[in-house]
Amino acid sequence: MSIDGAIFPTRAAFEEGLRDLAAPDAGAIAAAGARQAQLTKPAGSLGRLEEIAIFLAGWQGREKPKLERGRAVVFAGNHGVVAHGVSAFPAEVTVQMVANFEAGGAAINALARAAGLEMVVVPLELHRPTADFTAAPAMDEAECLAALSAGAATAEPGLDLLIVGEMGIGNSTAAAALCTRAFGGSAAGWTGPGTGVDAEGIARKVAVIERAIGFHRDAPATPFETLRRLGGREIVAIAGAILRARQLRIPVVLDGFICCASLAPIAAAHPDIVAHCLAAHRSAEPGHGRLLEKLGLEPLLSLDMRLGEGSGAAVAVAVVRSALAAHGEMATFAEAGVSDAG
Amino acid sequence: MSIDGAIFPTRAAFEEGLRDLAAPDAGAIAAAGARQAQLTKPAGSLGRLEEIAIFLAGWQGREKPKLERGRAVVFAGNHGVVAHGVSAFPAEVTVQMVANFEAGGAAINALARAAGLEMVVVPLELHRPTADFTAAPAMDEAECLAALSAGAATAEPGLDLLIVGEMGIGNSTAAAALCTRAFGGSAAGWTGPGTGVDAEGIARKVAVIERAIGFHRDAPATPFETLRRLGGREIVAIAGAILRARQLRIPVVLDGFICCASLAPIAAAHPDIVAHCLAAHRSAEPGHGRLLEKLGLEPLLSLDMRLGEGSGAAVAVAVVRSALAAHGEMATFAEAGVSDAG
Repeated sequence: MSIDGAIFPTRAAFEEGLRDLAAPDAGAIAAAGARQAQLTKPAGSLGRLEEIAIFLAGWQGREKPKLERGRAVVFAGNHGVVAHGVSAFPAEVTVQMVANFEAGGAAINALARAAGLEMVVVPLELHRPTADFTAAPAMDEAECLAALSAGAATAEPGLDLLIVGEMGIGNSTAAAALCTRAFGGSAAGWTGPGTGVDAEGIARKVAVIERAIGFHRDAPATPFETLRRLGGREIVAIAGAILRARQLRIPVVLDGFICCASLAPIAAAHPDIVAHCLAAHRSAEPGHGRLLEKLGLEPLLSLDMRLGEGSGAAVAVAVVRSALAAHGEMATFAEAGVSDAG
Repeated sequence: MSIDGAIFPTRAAFEEGLRDLAAPDAGAIAAAGARQAQLTKPAGSLGRLEEIAIFLAGWQGREKPKLERGRAVVFAGNHGVVAHGVSAFPAEVTVQMVANFEAGGAAINALARAAGLEMVVVPLELHRPTADFTAAPAMDEAECLAALSAGAATAEPGLDLLIVGEMGIGNSTAAAALCTRAFGGSAAGWTGPGTGVDAEGIARKVAVIERAIGFHRDAPATPFETLRRLGGREIVAIAGAILRARQLRIPVVLDGFICCASLAPIAAAHPDIVAHCLAAHRSAEPGHGRLLEKLGLEPLLSLDMRLGEGSGAAVAVAVVRSALAAHGEMATFAEAGVSDAG
């Protein structure tokens, strides 16, 4: 099975990518750290802003990282599992929201503009939902490879930063299923209200996930198989974009629960997959904090957001810009004639 | 005692200001809340971004608040208490850093530029430190009124937002003294490393504060007397700016421990003083989290920053801009033809 011209034409190409993860530039990290130590402030007093600047220096391979060309991508997909009543919104909202993204009226449009990011919208076969994963794999191999490669294609050489968001009615159920399969624990521990279902809705989601976990119990526990069986096209595309960004050493700002869940099956086998990623925020979805712990990431923000679309990541980019401004523009002690700590 | 032409010419004028605190515009709050409910997102899913937009609507008195003219002010002052070895930096750094602010090379310059804020630097009698408050009031009445009014003058009509920062070697000791006097508890509970003293330095700070608290024990426990006796010029100026902003209904983003400590003596008597203020962040200074609880404020960010200058507030303004972008630019369900929750 092979898709001509795709970035991940075969399952083996994807798996090979995961075995050979790029490392940041140690020289740029050292240079950026040395620069921070000379800036006119007590050492370490800018806290995580200093970490962000040094992180970006490492992945961009330059002492003074830049953010001239940042991109926000929103992937959209539809889910067979919505037949079980797992969302507060009807499935047609996915296609309506894609029109809203394309017209510039959604939250991510406003937030990406405010953050100075270019915006790309990628609807993925919205007329063809994934299969109901309680009774079949969500995607066949070709569909999964197509979604991975569609995602990968959005991580273009020359980008300084990438954020990846999603829209897909029903996808917090798929995300919780991925986390349950990847990291274990009860389905209930990974399941929350998503866009706003009530306690009964959460109980329906938990039952659906338990059924799905049972159905796929004997499948190979590889990242590809877990994504293919329990993911959705937009979720798989996010995984493809993040892996491709790693190959190109483009730093990524992760969004909320669903975005991070796309990495769960990969991180269970290859924990280093998140090394080029910052966690934007801890969302209000209860599983997200737990997932960030599993991924070993400390979020930058905690603003009770729970929208998806990449919205939390876009807000975090404003913090990243602050970090780069301080790192790039501040005077050193020597330049400013300021005495260092006595 | 009266200072001609000053915004707070007398102690009574300041105290009158505190008794008559302006309220936000209830109509604008209702209109902004109604708008949020119609935007194309699940209700409440932008979390604190929604709160921020509605808060600004109330204080600016408009359904769609704006941030065209935001100002960052940095006040600088020197402190007699530095004679006791309470800082890691020599006192001459205050004047050196003012030169750095004026040349545009400090963290707040870079962060204010990134946040789109105009910048004002106000050095306050740097050649004349306050008195050593372990053995005398830090300021006489005229000095305290002059500092209050210098601060108040920076909150000009027409500003959409104000952030106030400080620079003053030794001022985390004054801030901890203000908190101890205003809210009680042990001096040690309010004292931390500031710009970076070690455990011995912290012990020196605690001893100094305990001596000061003892010396001023029998003074009247009014906001003015506490600020005059234990504050510093830059701290008092911040209090004056925040009170004046309230009179003009200009919303304020508070910075870290020292900025917030300027409000401690006022808030102990008039808790509503913070109603027009957002807390930008919880700094790494251990007393700050405790002080925010006393003030009843939930910080937007927690980035381990501990620099002062208004730096944390400037970063938070980037989040405020995101909130205003979403609030002002998103389409409604009706405009976008998107189905609401079923």
